Amino acid sequence: MNKQLILVKRPVAMPDADTWELQSNPIPTIGDGEVLIKTHYVSLDPAMRGWMMDRKSYLPPVAIGEVMRAGTIGEVIESNNHPTFKVGDILSGWGGVQQYIQTNGERHFKVDTNLAPMTKYLGSLGMPGMTAYFGILEVGKIQEGDVVLVSGAAGAVGSVVGQIAKIKGCTVVGIAGGQAKCDYVVNELGFDACIDYKNDSVYKGIKEHCPKGIDVYFDNVGGEILDLALAFLRMHARVVICGAISQYNSVDVEGPKNYLSLLVNRATMQGMVVLDYAKDYRSAAMQMGMWMMEGKLKTEEDVYDGIENFYETFLRLFNGDKRGKLLLKVIEE
Amino acid sequence: MNKQLILVKRPVAMPDADTWELQSNPIPTIGDGEVLIKTHYVSLDPAMRGWMMDRKSYLPPVAIGEVMRAGTIGEVIESNNHPTFKVGDILSGWGGVQQYIQTNGERHFKVDTNLAPMTKYLGSLGMPGMTAYFGILEVGKIQEGDVVLVSGAAGAVGSVVGQIAKIKGCTVVGIAGGQAKCDYVVNELGFDACIDYKNDSVYKGIKEHCPKGIDVYFDNVGGEILDLALAFLRMHARVVICGAISQYNSVDVEGPKNYLSLLVNRATMQGMVVLDYAKDYRSAAMQMGMWMMEGKLKTEEDVYDGIENFYETFLRLFNGDKRGKLLLKVIEE
Repeated sequence: MNKQLILVKRPVAMPDADTWELQSNPIPTIGDGEVLIKTHYVSLDPAMRGWMMDRKSYLPPVAIGEVMRAGTIGEVIESNNHPTFKVGDILSGWGGVQQYIQTNGERHFKVDTNLAPMTKYLGSLGMPGMTAYFGILEVGKIQEGDVVLVSGAAGAVGSVVGQIAKIKGCTVVGIAGGQAKCDYVVNELGFDACIDYKNDSVYKGIKEHCPKGIDVYFDNVGGEILDLALAFLRMHARVVICGAISQYNSVDVEGPKNYLSLLVNRATMQGMVVLDYAKDYRSAAMQMGMWMMEGKLKTEEDVYDGIENFYETFLRLFNGDKRGKLLLKVIEE
Repeated sequence: MNKQLILVKRPVAMPDADTWELQSNPIPTIGDGEVLIKTHYVSLDPAMRGWMMDRKSYLPPVAIGEVMRAGTIGEVIESNNHPTFKVGDILSGWGGVQQYIQTNGERHFKVDTNLAPMTKYLGSLGMPGMTAYFGILEVGKIQEGDVVLVSGAAGAVGSVVGQIAKIKGCTVVGIAGGQAKCDYVVNELGFDACIDYKNDSVYKGIKEHCPKGIDVYFDNVGGEILDLALAFLRMHARVVICGAISQYNSVDVEGPKNYLSLLVNRATMQGMVVLDYAKDYRSAAMQMGMWMMEGKLKTEEDVYDGIENFYETFLRLFNGDKRGKLLLKVIEE
């Protein structure tokens, strides 16, 4: 049988467990030109929260009754005359939260597990890694010597953003929740400092670690931390709006009260969606792979097991109880 | 005697009349290398409200006990060996709200009143005009065919922004307060439409007049109108943060709740301060003058009389009871 997670209602604030329903349906029979993928891992991302809202966005909302959208990686176990994919190929794509994927191959691409393990293709070599890469280089436009502040610094995107900024010669300060994450960010990932927003004052932390202010703020969280970062912008600073995890479950979004700092400092706040950079993913992934081999870029995946545990794992996106890329193993062995 | 308006306290919300004190002091005796200017007109600008706050900004705050900062235009009536300025020269500069200005000439420059009357040099050929010019062209980066929305459309900056956008082949929709201003904006200035925010729904107005959304929003007001504009951004839209008059007298600034529209639409919100473009003022003023002579650019000044009437005139900046550039004539005849 194919266990599939179906979206059955639209959540208003933080989704309840009954937002989705786990169904067991027959494994699909593929048609001509299609493949059947056995899913190994499903990617859990904060963006999922946005895809559940019934409003115009960069992707259409997941429909009620549809399999929950998610990035996936798995193995082709059947091919019905597919022109490019054959049995045994490992495909990364948008398969959704389910154990078997029937597809004509659109929005799936083949990866080489001799170069990196499957999980990396959903992490540093996948969407979060690409988001970090294009976000900090193309939108943040970092220059050697810049002071870069990154929220969600122990997360899948933030951890890579900070390391790329270090590679490019910036001073990098992270913001993360808890001493353990901050230690990881500084001692393992090589950030210059990390502010523990759960136990320390973010205001004092920025003041201490960025005494001259901030050239680039990479925002994954929104809310109060975005406001504090705005208060410390330097002239011509760039604020990259990548996400706003503090606001995703809020009915009433908190706007940045300090946005007039953009005026005073002739600064720019710019949003990004990684899908726009698809044509350059390959070369970015090669560069990221090089940095990983050279030991300059370290990434972690936090893997949980069992499609039945989707909901508890999903909650970790918002309660902060995870480190690096959050994945769910859905293959049963 | 020299009547001078002195800042005597820092206002918290809307300034009271006793925020300033009108003093009569002796006309200053100038030193070697200085000139004495007899002020004709003082410029009243929303930015004045910001200069009164004791906080880091693009200019230092006006000190308590100091003459209130303002743009001025006046005539040199005495020169003590000044290297460039002589008696009879008309100088525009930062003279402050006073009838006589003692200066070494720094931050004053000579203008030609044969080309345009004095008042234009504080309006379309002065700071507001330059703000409009560089704001819409350099920060807004308008292209032919863009849909441009402008708040404060009947004001000194907004009225010029919209006309430049029309000259460049854009569709231009204004937002202004009251039917009379809206009629002026459409019938006199040639905007395609104008939304009367005092009597009509801005949401419905944008929806009607910008059915495909907005490419550039030029914001002079902040608050709810900024939020509505954000909700209608098109892909890669640009939001120019020029001012936020609705927020200047607020103790608690309202941040734009819809800022995540920047993310969804890969849009940019950028602040500007006109002083950064000083090296290009001359060529911009020449271009503006050309458009004025060709009848493509119309500007108005709303002139009040008497330095004693500063406070009532200042209030017009915020209650909307003015049209075009607000000026105070301080010379006594």
